[in-house]
Amino acid sequence: MSKRLIIIGGVAAGMSAAVRARRTNPDLEIVVYEKSGYISYGACGFPYFIKGEIPRIEDLIARTPADMAAQGICAKVHHAVTALDPARKTARVLDRQSGVEFDDHWDRLIIAAGAYVQKPPIPGLGLAGVFTLRTVEDALAIRDWLVGERPRRGVILGASYTGLEMAEALAANGIAVTLVDAAQQVMPNLDGEIAAHVRAGLEAQGVTVYLGQWVRTLLGPALADDIAHRVAARLQAPLDSVALNGDGRLRVREVVTGEGSVPADIVIVGVGGRPNVALAQAAGITIGQTGAIAVDRQQRTNLPDIWAAGAAAETWSLVTGAPTYHPGALTANRQGRVAGANAAGGTVEFGGVAGSSIIKAFDMTISHTGLSERQARALGLDAAGVVIRGVSKAGYMPGGAPIQVKLVYEPGSGRVLGAQIVGTDGVGKRIDVVAAALRAGWTVEELAQVDTAYSPPYGAVWDPLVAAANEASQSRVRRPAPADRQPA
Amino acid sequence: MSKRLIIIGGVAAGMSAAVRARRTNPDLEIVVYEKSGYISYGACGFPYFIKGEIPRIEDLIARTPADMAAQGICAKVHHAVTALDPARKTARVLDRQSGVEFDDHWDRLIIAAGAYVQKPPIPGLGLAGVFTLRTVEDALAIRDWLVGERPRRGVILGASYTGLEMAEALAANGIAVTLVDAAQQVMPNLDGEIAAHVRAGLEAQGVTVYLGQWVRTLLGPALADDIAHRVAARLQAPLDSVALNGDGRLRVREVVTGEGSVPADIVIVGVGGRPNVALAQAAGITIGQTGAIAVDRQQRTNLPDIWAAGAAAETWSLVTGAPTYHPGALTANRQGRVAGANAAGGTVEFGGVAGSSIIKAFDMTISHTGLSERQARALGLDAAGVVIRGVSKAGYMPGGAPIQVKLVYEPGSGRVLGAQIVGTDGVGKRIDVVAAALRAGWTVEELAQVDTAYSPPYGAVWDPLVAAANEASQSRVRRPAPADRQPA
Repeated sequence: MSKRLIIIGGVAAGMSAAVRARRTNPDLEIVVYEKSGYISYGACGFPYFIKGEIPRIEDLIARTPADMAAQGICAKVHHAVTALDPARKTARVLDRQSGVEFDDHWDRLIIAAGAYVQKPPIPGLGLAGVFTLRTVEDALAIRDWLVGERPRRGVILGASYTGLEMAEALAANGIAVTLVDAAQQVMPNLDGEIAAHVRAGLEAQGVTVYLGQWVRTLLGPALADDIAHRVAARLQAPLDSVALNGDGRLRVREVVTGEGSVPADIVIVGVGGRPNVALAQAAGITIGQTGAIAVDRQQRTNLPDIWAAGAAAETWSLVTGAPTYHPGALTANRQGRVAGANAAGGTVEFGGVAGSSIIKAFDMTISHTGLSERQARALGLDAAGVVIRGVSKAGYMPGGAPIQVKLVYEPGSGRVLGAQIVGTDGVGKRIDVVAAALRAGWTVEELAQVDTAYSPPYGAVWDPLVAAANEASQSRVRRPAPADRQPA
Repeated sequence: MSKRLIIIGGVAAGMSAAVRARRTNPDLEIVVYEKSGYISYGACGFPYFIKGEIPRIEDLIARTPADMAAQGICAKVHHAVTALDPARKTARVLDRQSGVEFDDHWDRLIIAAGAYVQKPPIPGLGLAGVFTLRTVEDALAIRDWLVGERPRRGVILGASYTGLEMAEALAANGIAVTLVDAAQQVMPNLDGEIAAHVRAGLEAQGVTVYLGQWVRTLLGPALADDIAHRVAARLQAPLDSVALNGDGRLRVREVVTGEGSVPADIVIVGVGGRPNVALAQAAGITIGQTGAIAVDRQQRTNLPDIWAAGAAAETWSLVTGAPTYHPGALTANRQGRVAGANAAGGTVEFGGVAGSSIIKAFDMTISHTGLSERQARALGLDAAGVVIRGVSKAGYMPGGAPIQVKLVYEPGSGRVLGAQIVGTDGVGKRIDVVAAALRAGWTVEELAQVDTAYSPPYGAVWDPLVAAANEASQSRVRRPAPADRQPA
């Protein structure tokens, strides 16, 4: 009798796992339960659909359940797994459309439940016009609001990846954008001096950036709001539950921070992406220090015949060797393949992450890999950084733009720890070279030797990465030997 | 008494050597002899000056003899070294402006004499309107011809780096361009299937490409030409020496190939860059198999106290471990630094080259590193290649363009041997990742693990390099073990 593989979650990790499991073992029964109405969608494309650059949401959906059926994979949408019984190898499944619940048996189980947006405890997040961005349904709702309501003022909570991409998307729709973040800088994975360039680039595009500001509350229209408060008080019900107008909800009108108030007719909550671990945790699966499901390099959890992959799971860092949480489409695809292969009888290992990312925000490319200097120090590493202002074309070429590079390294050993590269032209995927250096475990001296390709339209003779590595190498020569140094 | 360092050649390698030698040893006397009228110029920028993109030739000159004097380096332009006497450590120097010759003594000597254009044995290369491109004077002469003569039809001999860059430069000046090459493909460092994309891209820009065609002769105006032939015959003088009109030379009008004739009022000879070794050879310095000056990793020649660097010298390949000839600005700068440091008393080694290059031709970026499949086979390596058609943006994003990637590897060991990346958008410096892989000595499996950064505006989830490495890795799994294979 053929074995049955159940996969929870049908997006990047889940579908990669399903396809790889099918390829590894043609006899396996494979069932995927996806709680949303779509599988295999390109969530990274949502900001560009909302922007209007990608015309149809269908363009973002790589495969449908029918496509999967053709490969012998049963993918069921609108099906939420609500409980796991590892002893009996049984999942409790809710068909969200019919309301029917049933039990399903697995021989092998892969948890690829992804992440969710943990809304901060701010009153008013239930107001109409307030959105998170995680699912196809979220993206459609935001786009509908843009088209139907023509908002003119937008506030984005959180100045990280989603926040910056959505700033571009909203601005392209004629919306005056305000970014608010409790942190003192944008993009928490960058060091402050590089983040300052990003902030300046956002402001140059007309974005208002409020940093170090906590959002206290979101408010609807003053009069209606006042009435709503009274009704809510009388009913002893949450404010958000009080229906007053339109689709039954108050509309957002204002975002109140510790330092003032910002008018808003659309609010994007771009903070708080957290791994979906509740189901696993309730079933006795170990959650790691990072808050995600603990897995070994074969993506195995602590329970037999249960794997985890993607944004619900931990991964491990090439830089520290320790578990880390680095959700992302490529990691999800890779982990999914590993989990799928192993659940189908293979023994494949996931190779770890450098921790790379790249985003576009207006005319800027913002990329990083490995650790920032601050992150490295927080981990107790002896870290130093060099900052280089490179150019996107040779100095004598017209139209070149600065490329800001920060290279982070361990002064004693010389080991490369990470890099940040930001600019408006020609940044490209230079960061991948540092991702390679992190995989190779290189020192700055080794990175400085890379035979980078040169031609004036693509930069200076000394690529900024090589220049930064040279500079770091020089700093190490100048640095006194440990014995000569004063105690800190 | 302080030691005296003589450096022959004052461009990339020579000036890098001078500056590094000065930094290494403040007491050294440093004299640089440069036979042209300029030092420290950015020769890679010449096509963009000729194109008209860089307005002034001075923009390409990084440092003048006066700048050097301020650093205690005596740089003499218009000074050609005509002979070396290693036994007496003496150079014969010709001041080309005054005609005065003198001897100069060195304690240490660095030969950074660069390369020259070895004109092919084609009659008519002395006609007016026929140019090579090596020096500032060459660049000025071409630009003067464009501005003064307004040529309308241009022929470029040689479809390699200079040829393609000059095709763009001439076309931007309203010239109908024909590229002629004796080889069966453009860009000899690429494999045929990638070169075919480049050829198609050139043709899409209106460039006529004649491959596999030998140039037989260049002709001037028919009538004048006929007279010139008769005069030359009567005087028993070369045709080119016969002065008939204008500045005293016949003007080019036609390029005759084995298959026909192409009208031309400007011809660029973009072939035959060869190392300047005559001086060294005459002095008993060993010339390597590559035709360039043989050096060890410290840039030492076979003679004591004589180093060589830059396009006159060999380098060594990270891929083969063997000597190779890879002239280029970055290699010249690096070798110059090594030679300068060592001539000033240091012991520094040059780290070898992957063999990287990148050029822009119209809207195309053409890059490669390491060995092509053909080059690898010619060296007796067991080589295979995978070709991937990647995309510059995620498939669902509008405006993406194909990126052609060929990854070359050794099927048995899995070792990466090289790569070629060509496209019209987003190619960037992805090739540097493979240059890093070559330095690390990686297999395709290791390259496939690089944590490349992903976001839809910059490509697909699976970077084409990673996709190519994955594909190569799959091919290795499918490949039968050596024992099962049929003998070739």
